[in-house]
Amino acid sequence: MAPPRLATFSVNGSTKYGAVVDGGIVDLSAHFAKEYPTLREVVAAGALTKLARHAEGRAPDHAFDAITWLPPIPAPEKIICIGVNYPDRNAEYKDGQDAPKYPSMFMRTPRSFVGHETPLVRPRASPQLDYEGELVLIIGKAGRHIAESTALDHIAAVTLCNEGTIRDWVRHAKFNVTQGKNFDSTGSLGPWLVPYTGESQISDIRLSTRVNGETRQDDRTGRLIFGFRYLINYISTFTTLVPGDVIVTGTPTGAGARFDPPRYLKPGDVIEVEAENIGTLRNGVIDEAL
Amino acid sequence: MAPPRLATFSVNGSTKYGAVVDGGIVDLSAHFAKEYPTLREVVAAGALTKLARHAEGRAPDHAFDAITWLPPIPAPEKIICIGVNYPDRNAEYKDGQDAPKYPSMFMRTPRSFVGHETPLVRPRASPQLDYEGELVLIIGKAGRHIAESTALDHIAAVTLCNEGTIRDWVRHAKFNVTQGKNFDSTGSLGPWLVPYTGESQISDIRLSTRVNGETRQDDRTGRLIFGFRYLINYISTFTTLVPGDVIVTGTPTGAGARFDPPRYLKPGDVIEVEAENIGTLRNGVIDEAL
Repeated sequence: MAPPRLATFSVNGSTKYGAVVDGGIVDLSAHFAKEYPTLREVVAAGALTKLARHAEGRAPDHAFDAITWLPPIPAPEKIICIGVNYPDRNAEYKDGQDAPKYPSMFMRTPRSFVGHETPLVRPRASPQLDYEGELVLIIGKAGRHIAESTALDHIAAVTLCNEGTIRDWVRHAKFNVTQGKNFDSTGSLGPWLVPYTGESQISDIRLSTRVNGETRQDDRTGRLIFGFRYLINYISTFTTLVPGDVIVTGTPTGAGARFDPPRYLKPGDVIEVEAENIGTLRNGVIDEAL
Repeated sequence: MAPPRLATFSVNGSTKYGAVVDGGIVDLSAHFAKEYPTLREVVAAGALTKLARHAEGRAPDHAFDAITWLPPIPAPEKIICIGVNYPDRNAEYKDGQDAPKYPSMFMRTPRSFVGHETPLVRPRASPQLDYEGELVLIIGKAGRHIAESTALDHIAAVTLCNEGTIRDWVRHAKFNVTQGKNFDSTGSLGPWLVPYTGESQISDIRLSTRVNGETRQDDRTGRLIFGFRYLINYISTFTTLVPGDVIVTGTPTGAGARFDPPRYLKPGDVIEVEAENIGTLRNGVIDEAL
Protein backbone atom coordinates (compact mmCIF):
# COMPACT_ATOMS: atom_id res chain seq x y z
CA MET A 1 0.00 0.00 0.00
CA ALA A 2 1.25 3.47 -0.85
CA PRO A 3 2.20 5.68 2.11
CA PRO A 4 0.08 8.79 2.80
CA ARG A 5 1.00 11.61 0.42
CA LEU A 6 0.07 15.26 0.94
CA ALA A 7 0.44 17.80 -1.83
CA THR A 8 0.09 21.52 -2.46
CA PHE A 9 -1.52 22.42 -5.78
CA SER A 10 -3.44 25.10 -7.60
CA VAL A 11 -6.79 24.66 -9.25
CA ASN A 12 -8.82 27.37 -10.96
CA GLY A 13 -6.35 29.97 -9.71
CA SER A 14 -6.53 29.02 -6.00
CA THR A 15 -3.72 27.42 -4.01
CA LYS A 16 -4.88 24.42 -1.98
CA TYR A 17 -3.55 21.30 -0.33
CA GLY A 18 -4.83 17.77 -0.22
CA ALA A 19 -4.17 14.05 -0.06
CA VAL A 20 -3.18 12.05 -3.11
CA VAL A 21 -5.44 9.03 -3.68
CA ASP A 22 -6.20 6.75 -6.63
CA GLY A 23 -7.29 8.90 -9.55
CA GLY A 24 -6.78 12.32 -8.02
CA ILE A 25 -6.61 14.53 -4.97
CA VAL A 26 -8.88 14.82 -1.96
CA ASP A 27 -9.13 18.54 -1.17
CA LEU A 28 -8.20 19.01 2.48
CA SER A 29 -8.06 22.81 2.38
CA ALA A 30 -11.84 22.83 2.19
CA HIS A 31 -12.02 21.32 5.67
CA PHE A 32 -8.76 22.45 7.34
CA ALA A 33 -7.63 25.76 5.76
CA LYS A 34 -8.97 27.84 8.64
CA GLU A 35 -6.90 25.90 11.16
CA TYR A 36 -3.91 25.35 8.88
CA PRO A 37 -3.64 27.83 5.99
CA THR A 38 -0.87 25.80 4.27
CA LEU A 39 1.00 22.53 4.69
CA ARG A 40 3.61 24.52 6.64
CA GLU A 41 1.10 24.97 9.46
CA VAL A 42 -0.01 21.34 9.14
CA VAL A 43 3.63 20.30 9.59
CA ALA A 44 4.07 22.68 12.54
CA ALA A 45 1.02 21.18 14.23
CA GLY A 46 2.23 17.62 13.68
CA ALA A 47 -1.03 16.99 11.84
CA LEU A 48 0.11 15.35 8.57
CA THR A 49 -1.09 11.90 9.58
CA LYS A 50 -4.37 13.20 10.98
CA LEU A 51 -5.08 14.89 7.65
CA ALA A 52 -4.09 11.84 5.66
CA ARG A 53 -6.53 9.75 7.73
CA HIS A 54 -9.30 12.26 7.10
CA ALA A 55 -8.89 11.61 3.37
CA GLU A 56 -8.98 7.81 3.65
CA GLY A 57 -11.75 6.19 1.67
CA ARG A 58 -12.89 9.44 0.07
CA ALA A 59 -13.26 9.94 -3.66
CA PRO A 60 -10.92 12.50 -5.22
CA ASP A 61 -12.22 16.07 -5.60
CA HIS A 62 -9.82 16.89 -8.42
CA ALA A 63 -8.41 14.72 -11.19
CA PHE A 64 -4.63 14.90 -11.60
CA ASP A 65 -4.97 16.56 -14.99
CA ALA A 66 -7.10 19.36 -13.51
CA ILE A 67 -4.44 20.62 -11.09
CA THR A 68 -1.01 22.22 -11.16
CA TRP A 69 1.37 20.69 -8.62
CA LEU A 70 3.28 23.19 -6.49
CA PRO A 71 6.25 22.78 -4.12
CA PRO A 72 4.72 21.18 -1.00
CA ILE A 73 5.72 23.97 1.45
CA PRO A 74 4.81 27.24 -0.31
CA ALA A 75 6.91 29.68 1.74
CA PRO A 76 9.44 27.95 3.98
CA GLU A 77 11.54 30.15 6.24
CA LYS A 78 14.65 28.63 4.71
CA ILE A 79 15.75 26.16 2.06
CA ILE A 80 19.21 24.83 2.86
CA CYS A 81 20.97 22.71 0.25
CA ILE A 82 23.96 20.46 0.89
CA GLY A 83 26.69 20.23 -1.75
CA VAL A 84 29.03 17.31 -2.47
CA ASN A 85 27.46 14.71 -0.17
CA TYR A 86 27.81 11.36 -2.00
CA PRO A 87 31.05 9.50 -2.69
CA ASP A 88 32.61 10.21 -6.11
CA ARG A 89 30.91 13.63 -6.17
CA ASN A 90 33.88 15.09 -4.33
CA ALA A 91 36.19 13.50 -6.93
CA GLU A 92 34.11 15.10 -9.72
CA TYR A 93 35.56 18.45 -8.73
CA LYS A 94 39.02 17.19 -9.71
CA ASP A 95 40.76 19.80 -7.60
CA GLY A 96 42.95 17.29 -5.81
CA GLN A 97 41.46 18.13 -2.43
CA ASP A 98 40.61 15.55 0.20
CA ALA A 99 37.08 14.79 1.23
CA PRO A 100 35.65 17.75 3.13
CA LYS A 101 35.60 17.86 6.91
CA TYR A 102 32.30 19.78 7.05
CA PRO A 103 29.42 19.95 4.57
CA SER A 104 29.27 22.71 2.00
CA MET A 105 25.89 24.42 1.94
CA PHE A 106 23.98 27.19 0.25
CA MET A 107 20.44 28.56 0.26
CA ARG A 108 17.86 28.74 -2.51
CA THR A 109 14.83 30.98 -2.85
CA PRO A 110 11.36 29.41 -3.15
CA ARG A 111 11.01 30.97 -6.60
CA SER A 112 13.93 28.95 -7.92
CA PHE A 113 11.61 25.91 -7.72
CA VAL A 114 8.51 24.71 -9.54
CA GLY A 115 6.34 21.73 -8.58
CA HIS A 116 5.94 18.26 -10.10
CA GLU A 117 5.08 18.18 -13.83
CA THR A 118 5.76 21.91 -14.40
CA PRO A 119 8.65 22.40 -16.82
CA LEU A 120 12.00 23.70 -15.60
CA VAL A 121 13.06 26.89 -17.37
CA ARG A 122 16.38 27.01 -19.25
CA PRO A 123 17.35 30.68 -18.87
CA ARG A 124 18.39 33.08 -21.60
CA ALA A 125 21.63 33.67 -19.72
CA SER A 126 23.08 30.17 -20.19
CA PRO A 127 22.49 26.80 -21.92
CA GLN A 128 24.07 24.93 -18.99
CA LEU A 129 20.91 23.79 -17.15
CA ASP A 130 21.77 20.60 -15.24
CA TYR A 131 19.83 18.17 -13.02
CA GLU A 132 20.60 16.98 -9.49
CA GLY A 133 18.24 14.46 -7.88
CA GLU A 134 18.07 14.70 -4.08
CA LEU A 135 16.16 13.48 -1.05
CA VAL A 136 14.62 16.28 1.03
CA LEU A 137 13.86 16.48 4.74
CA ILE A 138 11.06 18.74 5.99
CA ILE A 139 11.51 19.91 9.57
CA GLY A 140 8.50 19.51 11.85
CA LYS A 141 9.80 20.43 15.30
CA ALA A 142 11.86 23.56 16.02
CA GLY A 143 15.26 23.28 17.63
CA ARG A 144 18.76 24.63 18.10
CA HIS A 145 21.77 22.58 19.16
CA ILE A 146 19.93 19.37 18.35
CA ALA A 147 21.85 16.24 19.35
CA GLU A 148 22.43 13.54 16.72
CA SER A 149 20.66 11.08 19.00
CA THR A 150 17.35 12.98 18.81
CA ALA A 151 17.85 14.63 15.40
CA LEU A 152 15.42 12.45 13.45
CA ASP A 153 12.58 13.39 15.82
CA HIS A 154 12.69 16.84 14.20
CA ILE A 155 11.71 15.49 10.77
CA ALA A 156 8.04 15.78 9.81
CA ALA A 157 8.17 14.53 6.24
CA VAL A 158 10.25 13.56 3.25
CA THR A 159 10.04 14.73 -0.35
CA LEU A 160 12.22 15.00 -3.47
CA CYS A 161 14.14 17.73 -5.26
CA ASN A 162 15.58 18.23 -8.68
CA GLU A 163 18.13 20.77 -7.53
CA GLY A 164 18.54 22.23 -11.04
CA THR A 165 21.69 24.24 -11.51
CA ILE A 166 23.18 26.60 -14.08
CA ARG A 167 26.71 25.24 -14.19
CA ASP A 168 28.69 28.20 -15.52
CA TRP A 169 26.95 30.64 -13.16
CA VAL A 170 27.87 28.45 -10.16
CA ARG A 171 31.44 29.50 -10.86
CA HIS A 172 30.80 33.18 -11.61
CA ALA A 173 32.14 34.25 -8.24
CA LYS A 174 35.29 33.65 -6.30
CA PHE A 175 33.28 32.07 -3.51
CA ASN A 176 29.70 30.85 -3.33
CA VAL A 177 27.45 29.16 -5.84
CA THR A 178 24.43 31.37 -5.08
CA GLN A 179 23.63 32.76 -8.50
CA GLY A 180 23.97 29.44 -10.39
CA LYS A 181 21.61 27.84 -7.87
CA ASN A 182 18.92 30.51 -7.88
CA PHE A 183 17.68 31.10 -11.40
CA ASP A 184 13.88 31.32 -11.31
CA SER A 185 12.11 27.99 -11.96
CA THR A 186 15.27 25.94 -12.60
CA GLY A 187 14.62 23.33 -9.91
CA SER A 188 11.64 21.39 -8.60
CA LEU A 189 10.31 20.15 -5.25
CA GLY A 190 7.70 17.46 -4.73
CA PRO A 191 5.58 15.78 -5.85
CA TRP A 192 4.25 15.51 -2.28
CA LEU A 193 5.14 15.12 1.38
CA VAL A 194 5.38 11.59 2.73
CA PRO A 195 5.05 11.75 6.54
CA TYR A 196 8.21 10.58 8.29
CA THR A 197 7.69 7.23 10.01
CA GLY A 198 11.12 6.21 11.27
CA GLU A 199 14.78 5.85 10.40
CA SER A 200 14.40 2.81 8.16
CA GLN A 201 12.19 4.88 5.84
CA ILE A 202 15.19 7.00 4.77
CA SER A 203 18.44 5.53 6.07
CA ASP A 204 19.34 3.36 3.07
CA ILE A 205 16.95 3.86 0.18
CA ARG A 206 17.66 3.98 -3.52
CA LEU A 207 17.75 7.44 -5.10
CA SER A 208 17.96 7.69 -8.88
CA THR A 209 17.59 10.23 -11.66
CA ARG A 210 16.60 9.49 -15.25
CA VAL A 211 16.72 11.79 -18.27
CA ASN A 212 14.44 10.66 -21.11
CA GLY A 213 14.33 7.24 -19.44
CA GLU A 214 18.13 6.83 -19.23
CA THR A 215 19.48 6.41 -15.70
CA ARG A 216 22.06 9.10 -14.94
CA GLN A 217 22.28 9.04 -11.15
CA ASP A 218 21.75 5.96 -9.01
CA ASP A 219 22.91 5.63 -5.42
CA ARG A 220 21.65 4.89 -1.93
CA THR A 221 21.17 7.27 0.98
CA GLY A 222 23.18 4.88 3.14
CA ARG A 223 26.26 6.16 1.30
CA LEU A 224 25.82 9.83 2.25
CA ILE A 225 29.07 11.40 3.44
CA PHE A 226 27.17 13.56 5.94
CA GLY A 227 24.14 11.59 7.13
CA PHE A 228 20.74 12.95 8.12
CA ARG A 229 21.46 12.95 11.88
CA TYR A 230 24.72 14.78 11.36
CA LEU A 231 23.17 17.39 9.04
CA ILE A 232 20.42 18.31 11.49
CA ASN A 233 22.94 18.49 14.32
CA TYR A 234 25.41 20.58 12.32
CA ILE A 235 22.90 23.03 10.81
CA SER A 236 21.27 23.58 14.21
CA THR A 237 24.66 24.62 15.60
CA PHE A 238 24.29 27.92 13.78
CA THR A 239 20.57 28.39 13.06
CA THR A 240 17.30 27.51 14.74
CA LEU A 241 15.48 25.00 12.58
CA VAL A 242 11.74 25.71 12.43
CA PRO A 243 8.72 23.79 11.09
CA GLY A 244 8.58 23.84 7.31
CA ASP A 245 12.33 24.30 6.85
CA VAL A 246 13.61 22.40 3.85
CA ILE A 247 16.92 20.51 3.87
CA VAL A 248 18.00 19.29 0.44
CA THR A 249 20.51 16.61 1.30
CA GLY A 250 22.84 16.33 -1.70
CA THR A 251 23.02 14.56 -5.05
CA PRO A 252 24.75 11.38 -6.24
CA THR A 253 27.42 11.40 -8.93
CA GLY A 254 26.23 11.55 -12.54
CA ALA A 255 25.01 15.10 -13.23
CA GLY A 256 25.20 16.21 -16.84
CA ALA A 257 28.32 18.29 -16.20
CA ARG A 258 30.32 15.12 -15.48
CA PHE A 259 30.04 13.79 -19.04
CA ASP A 260 32.57 14.69 -21.72
CA PRO A 261 31.20 16.55 -23.52
CA PRO A 262 28.68 17.66 -20.85
CA ARG A 263 25.05 16.64 -21.37
CA TYR A 264 23.00 19.63 -20.30
CA LEU A 265 19.22 19.71 -20.37
CA LYS A 266 17.37 21.05 -23.39
CA PRO A 267 13.73 21.81 -24.19
CA GLY A 268 11.71 18.61 -24.50
CA ASP A 269 13.82 16.57 -22.09
CA VAL A 270 12.00 14.79 -19.24
CA ILE A 271 13.79 14.36 -15.91
CA GLU A 272 12.58 11.94 -13.25
CA VAL A 273 13.93 11.84 -9.71
CA GLU A 274 12.80 8.72 -7.86
CA ALA A 275 13.29 7.47 -4.32
CA GLU A 276 12.12 4.16 -2.96
CA ASN A 277 8.73 4.40 -1.21
CA ILE A 278 8.70 8.20 -1.60
CA GLY A 279 7.69 8.75 -5.22
CA THR A 280 8.83 10.11 -8.56
CA LEU A 281 9.28 13.81 -9.29
CA ARG A 282 8.97 14.50 -13.03
CA ASN A 283 9.62 17.71 -14.98
CA GLY A 284 10.07 18.74 -18.56
CA VAL A 285 12.21 21.63 -19.81
CA ILE A 286 11.27 24.78 -21.70
CA ASP A 287 13.24 27.82 -22.75
CA GLU A 288 12.73 31.11 -20.92
CA ALA A 289 10.36 33.30 -22.91
CA LEU A 290 12.07 36.05 -24.91
CA MET B 1 16.14 68.51 8.61
CA ALA B 2 16.29 64.75 9.11
CA PRO B 3 14.84 62.63 6.30
CA PRO B 4 11.67 60.58 6.99
CA ARG B 5 12.52 57.41 8.92
CA LEU B 6 10.22 54.39 9.26
CA ALA B 7 10.91 51.64 11.75
CA THR B 8 9.57 48.26 12.83
CA PHE B 9 9.54 47.69 16.58
CA SER B 10 7.91 45.73 19.36
CA VAL B 11 6.18 47.21 22.36
CA ASN B 12 4.38 45.25 25.08
CA GLY B 13 4.82 42.08 23.04
CA SER B 14 3.24 43.41 19.82
CA THR B 15 5.12 44.05 16.58
CA LYS B 16 4.32 47.46 15.08
CA TYR B 17 5.74 50.02 12.70
CA GLY B 18 5.93 53.76 12.88
CA ALA B 19 7.74 56.99 12.06
CA VAL B 20 10.73 58.18 14.05
CA VAL B 21 10.30 61.76 15.33
CA ASP B 22 11.92 63.86 18.06
CA GLY B 23 11.69 61.97 21.32
CA GLY B 24 10.11 58.77 20.09
CA ILE B 25 7.98 56.96 17.54
CA VAL B 26 4.61 57.81 16.05
CA ASP B 27 2.68 54.53 15.84
CA LEU B 28 1.50 54.10 12.24
CA SER B 29 0.27 50.52 12.65
CA ALA B 30 -2.68 51.86 14.61
CA HIS B 31 -3.93 53.67 11.51
CA PHE B 32 -2.53 51.61 8.61
CA ALA B 33 -2.10 47.98 9.76
CA LYS B 34 -5.31 46.84 8.08
CA GLU B 35 -4.15 48.14 4.72
CA TYR B 36 -0.44 47.30 5.23
CA PRO B 37 0.25 44.61 7.86
CA THR B 38 4.02 45.31 7.83
CA LEU B 39 6.51 47.71 6.24
CA ARG B 40 6.92 45.10 3.49
CA GLU B 41 3.40 45.87 2.28
CA VAL B 42 4.00 49.60 2.74
CA VAL B 43 7.07 49.30 0.51
CA ALA B 44 5.15 47.22 -2.05
CA ALA B 45 2.45 49.91 -2.20
CA GLY B 46 4.99 52.71 -2.65
CA ALA B 47 3.47 54.28 0.46
CA LEU B 48 6.55 55.06 2.61
CA THR B 49 6.39 58.80 1.96
CA LYS B 50 2.62 58.92 2.43
CA LEU B 51 3.01 57.30 5.85
CA ALA B 52 5.87 59.59 6.83
CA ARG B 53 3.68 62.61 5.97
CA HIS B 54 0.87 61.21 8.08
CA ALA B 55 3.22 61.32 11.09
CA GLU B 56 4.40 64.91 10.52
CA GLY B 57 3.70 67.25 13.42
CA ARG B 58 2.41 64.47 15.68
CA ALA B 59 3.72 63.78 19.16
CA PRO B 60 5.40 60.38 19.65
CA ASP B 61 3.24 57.53 20.95
CA HIS B 62 6.20 55.59 22.34
CA ALA B 63 9.44 56.82 23.88
CA PHE B 64 12.59 55.22 22.43
CA ASP B 65 13.34 53.47 25.71
CA ALA B 66 9.91 51.81 25.72
CA ILE B 67 10.43 49.92 22.46
CA THR B 68 12.61 47.16 21.03
CA TRP B 69 13.85 47.97 17.51
CA LEU B 70 13.44 45.16 14.99
CA PRO B 71 14.82 44.69 11.45
CA PRO B 72 12.69 47.04 9.30
CA ILE B 73 11.31 44.33 6.96
CA PRO B 74 10.23 41.45 9.24
CA ALA B 75 10.02 38.63 6.67
CA PRO B 76 11.60 39.53 3.35
CA GLU B 77 11.39 36.96 0.57
CA LYS B 78 15.17 37.06 0.28
CA ILE B 79 18.21 38.71 1.82
CA ILE B 80 21.10 38.76 -0.67
CA CYS B 81 24.52 39.82 0.57
CA ILE B 82 27.43 40.88 -1.64
CA GLY B 83 30.95 39.84 -0.65
CA VAL B 84 34.23 41.62 -1.43
CA ASN B 85 32.84 44.83 -2.94
CA TYR B 86 35.21 47.64 -1.84
CA PRO B 87 38.82 48.13 -2.98
CA ASP B 88 41.44 46.58 -0.68
CA ARG B 89 38.89 43.99 0.53
CA ASN B 90 39.83 41.75 -2.38
CA ALA B 91 43.51 42.15 -1.36
CA GLU B 92 42.61 41.17 2.22
CA TYR B 93 42.08 37.64 1.00
CA LYS B 94 45.77 37.48 0.01
CA ASP B 95 45.18 34.65 -2.40
CA GLY B 96 46.98 36.34 -5.27
CA GLN B 97 43.85 36.41 -7.40
CA ASP B 98 42.83 39.37 -9.53
CA ALA B 99 39.79 41.45 -8.80
CA PRO B 100 36.67 39.37 -9.46
CA LYS B 101 34.77 39.66 -12.73
CA TYR B 102 31.38 39.09 -11.09
CA PRO B 103 30.19 39.71 -7.53
CA SER B 104 30.32 36.97 -4.92
CA MET B 105 27.02 36.61 -3.09
CA PHE B 106 25.28 34.58 -0.44
CA MET B 107 21.96 34.60 1.38
CA ARG B 108 21.16 35.11 5.04
CA THR B 109 18.09 34.10 7.01
CA PRO B 110 16.03 36.79 8.77
CA ARG B 111 16.83 35.14 12.10
CA SER B 112 20.54 35.82 11.67
CA PHE B 113 19.72 39.50 12.32
CA VAL B 114 18.54 41.56 15.28
CA GLY B 115 17.43 45.21 15.19
CA HIS B 116 19.11 48.41 16.38
CA GLU B 117 20.24 48.42 20.05
CA THR B 118 19.70 44.68 20.57
CA PRO B 119 23.00 42.93 21.33
CA LEU B 120 24.61 40.63 18.80
CA VAL B 121 25.15 37.12 20.12
CA ARG B 122 28.64 35.62 20.19
CA PRO B 123 27.91 31.91 19.76
CA ARG B 124 29.19 29.05 21.88
CA ALA B 125 30.63 27.49 18.73
CA SER B 126 33.29 30.16 18.11
CA PRO B 127 34.86 33.32 19.59
CA GLN B 128 35.42 34.77 16.09
CA LEU B 129 32.43 37.15 15.87
CA ASP B 130 33.36 39.98 13.49
CA TYR B 131 31.63 43.15 12.26
CA GLU B 132 30.99 44.32 8.70
CA GLY B 133 29.26 47.68 8.18
CA GLU B 134 27.21 47.88 4.96
CA LEU B 135 24.69 50.00 3.12
CA VAL B 136 21.43 48.18 2.31
CA LEU B 137 18.97 48.63 -0.56
CA ILE B 138 15.31 47.68 -0.08
CA ILE B 139 13.52 46.78 -3.30
CA GLY B 140 10.17 48.49 -3.89
CA LYS B 141 9.23 47.48 -7.42
CA ALA B 142 9.37 43.92 -8.74
CA GLY B 143 11.42 43.08 -11.81
CA ARG B 144 13.51 40.59 -13.74
CA HIS B 145 16.15 41.48 -16.33
CA ILE B 146 16.23 45.05 -15.04
CA ALA B 147 18.44 47.36 -17.13
CA GLU B 148 21.14 49.38 -15.37
CA SER B 149 19.55 52.55 -16.77
CA THR B 150 16.31 51.97 -14.82
CA ALA B 151 17.72 49.92 -11.93
CA LEU B 152 17.51 52.64 -9.28
CA ASP B 153 13.77 53.05 -9.91
CA HIS B 154 13.36 49.65 -8.21
CA ILE B 155 14.72 50.93 -4.86
CA ALA B 156 12.14 51.89 -2.23
CA ALA B 157 14.41 52.66 0.70
CA VAL B 158 17.86 52.52 2.21
CA THR B 159 19.00 51.15 5.56
CA LEU B 160 22.14 49.79 7.27
CA CYS B 161 23.54 46.39 8.16
CA ASN B 162 26.14 45.07 10.51
CA GLU B 163 26.70 41.91 8.54
CA GLY B 164 28.18 40.08 11.53
CA THR B 165 30.19 37.01 10.65
CA ILE B 166 31.74 34.01 12.39
CA ARG B 167 35.12 33.98 10.64
CA ASP B 168 36.26 30.40 11.15
CA TRP B 169 32.86 29.01 10.17
CA VAL B 170 32.95 30.98 6.90
CA ARG B 171 35.75 28.65 5.88
CA HIS B 172 34.26 25.40 7.18
CA ALA B 173 33.30 24.28 3.72
CA LYS B 174 35.11 23.92 0.45
CA PHE B 175 32.78 26.40 -1.21
CA ASN B 176 30.25 28.76 0.28
CA VAL B 177 30.27 30.91 3.40
CA THR B 178 26.67 30.02 4.39
CA GLN B 179 27.19 28.69 7.91
CA GLY B 180 29.57 31.47 9.07
CA LYS B 181 27.07 34.06 7.84
CA ASN B 182 23.95 32.56 9.39
CA PHE B 183 24.43 32.13 13.11
CA ASP B 184 21.27 33.31 14.89
CA SER B 185 21.38 36.99 15.98
CA THR B 186 24.95 37.65 14.82
CA GLY B 187 24.10 40.59 12.54
CA SER B 188 21.79 43.60 12.64
CA LEU B 189 19.58 45.55 10.24
CA GLY B 190 18.23 49.06 10.76
CA PRO B 191 17.68 51.26 12.60
CA TRP B 192 15.01 52.35 10.09
CA LEU B 193 14.10 52.72 6.43
CA VAL B 194 14.94 56.04 4.82
CA PRO B 195 12.80 56.38 1.67
CA TYR B 196 14.90 56.50 -1.48
CA THR B 197 14.88 59.95 -3.06
CA GLY B 198 17.41 59.76 -5.90
CA GLU B 199 20.87 58.67 -6.94
CA SER B 200 22.76 61.43 -5.08
CA GLN B 201 21.35 60.10 -1.79
CA ILE B 202 23.46 56.92 -2.11
CA SER B 203 25.98 57.23 -4.95
CA ASP B 204 28.92 58.62 -2.99
CA ILE B 205 28.22 58.74 0.74
CA ARG B 206 30.52 58.03 3.63
CA LEU B 207 30.09 54.63 5.30
CA SER B 208 31.97 53.95 8.52
CA THR B 209 32.08 51.46 11.38
CA ARG B 210 33.29 52.17 14.91
CA VAL B 211 34.00 49.70 17.70
CA ASN B 212 33.93 51.29 21.16
CA GLY B 213 34.32 54.67 19.45
CA GLU B 214 37.38 53.69 17.39
CA THR B 215 36.93 53.92 13.62
CA ARG B 216 37.64 50.57 11.99
CA GLN B 217 36.01 50.90 8.57
CA ASP B 218 35.69 54.17 6.65
CA ASP B 219 35.01 54.40 2.95
CA ARG B 220 32.61 55.89 0.42
CA THR B 221 29.96 54.12 -1.65
CA GLY B 222 31.41 55.83 -4.73
CA ARG B 223 34.28 53.33 -4.49
CA LEU B 224 32.13 50.18 -4.74
CA ILE B 225 33.59 47.65 -7.19
CA PHE B 226 30.06 46.59 -8.25
CA GLY B 227 27.82 49.64 -8.01
CA PHE B 228 24.13 49.73 -7.13
CA ARG B 229 22.89 49.84 -10.74
CA TYR B 230 25.08 46.89 -11.67
CA LEU B 231 24.01 44.80 -8.66
CA ILE B 232 20.30 45.20 -9.40
CA ASN B 233 20.88 44.40 -13.06
CA TYR B 234 23.06 41.36 -12.29
CA ILE B 235 20.89 39.86 -9.55
CA SER B 236 17.76 40.27 -11.67
CA THR B 237 19.41 38.22 -14.41
CA PHE B 238 18.78 35.11 -12.33
CA THR B 239 15.99 35.96 -9.88
CA THR B 240 12.89 38.13 -9.86
CA LEU B 241 13.39 40.92 -7.33
CA VAL B 242 10.20 41.61 -5.34
CA PRO B 243 9.14 44.34 -2.91
CA GLY B 244 10.83 44.00 0.45
CA ASP B 245 13.87 42.15 -0.90
CA VAL B 246 17.03 43.16 0.93
CA ILE B 247 20.36 43.70 -0.86
CA VAL B 248 23.31 44.10 1.50
CA THR B 249 25.88 45.75 -0.72
CA GLY B 250 29.28 44.87 0.77
CA THR B 251 31.69 46.12 3.43
CA PRO B 252 34.81 48.31 3.32
CA THR B 253 38.21 47.06 4.40
CA GLY B 254 38.93 47.01 8.13
CA ALA B 255 37.01 44.10 9.65
CA GLY B 256 38.51 42.64 12.84
CA ALA B 257 39.92 39.64 10.96
CA ARG B 258 42.30 41.94 9.05
CA PHE B 259 44.28 42.92 12.16
CA ASP B 260 47.27 40.92 13.39
CA PRO B 261 46.33 39.51 15.80
CA PRO B 262 42.65 39.64 14.79
CA ARG B 263 40.39 41.87 16.87
CA TYR B 264 37.14 39.95 17.24
CA LEU B 265 34.11 41.24 19.12
CA LYS B 266 33.58 40.38 22.77
CA PRO B 267 30.79 40.93 25.27
CA GLY B 268 30.47 44.59 26.22
CA ASP B 269 31.75 45.94 22.89
CA VAL B 270 29.60 48.52 21.10
CA ILE B 271 29.59 48.61 17.30
CA GLU B 272 28.22 51.54 15.33
CA VAL B 273 27.64 51.49 11.58
CA GLU B 274 26.99 54.97 10.20
CA ALA B 275 26.13 56.30 6.76
CA GLU B 276 25.74 59.92 5.82
CA ASN B 277 22.12 61.10 5.95
CA ILE B 278 20.88 57.54 6.67
CA GLY B 279 21.63 57.06 10.37
CA THR B 280 23.66 55.06 12.86
CA LEU B 281 23.00 51.40 13.63
CA ARG B 282 24.29 50.52 17.11
CA ASN B 283 24.59 47.11 18.82
CA GLY B 284 26.30 45.65 21.84
CA VAL B 285 27.54 42.07 22.17
CA ILE B 286 26.56 39.31 24.58
CA ASP B 287 27.52 35.67 24.84
CA GLU B 288 25.05 32.99 23.82
CA ALA B 289 23.30 31.63 26.89
CA LEU B 290 24.63 28.27 28.07
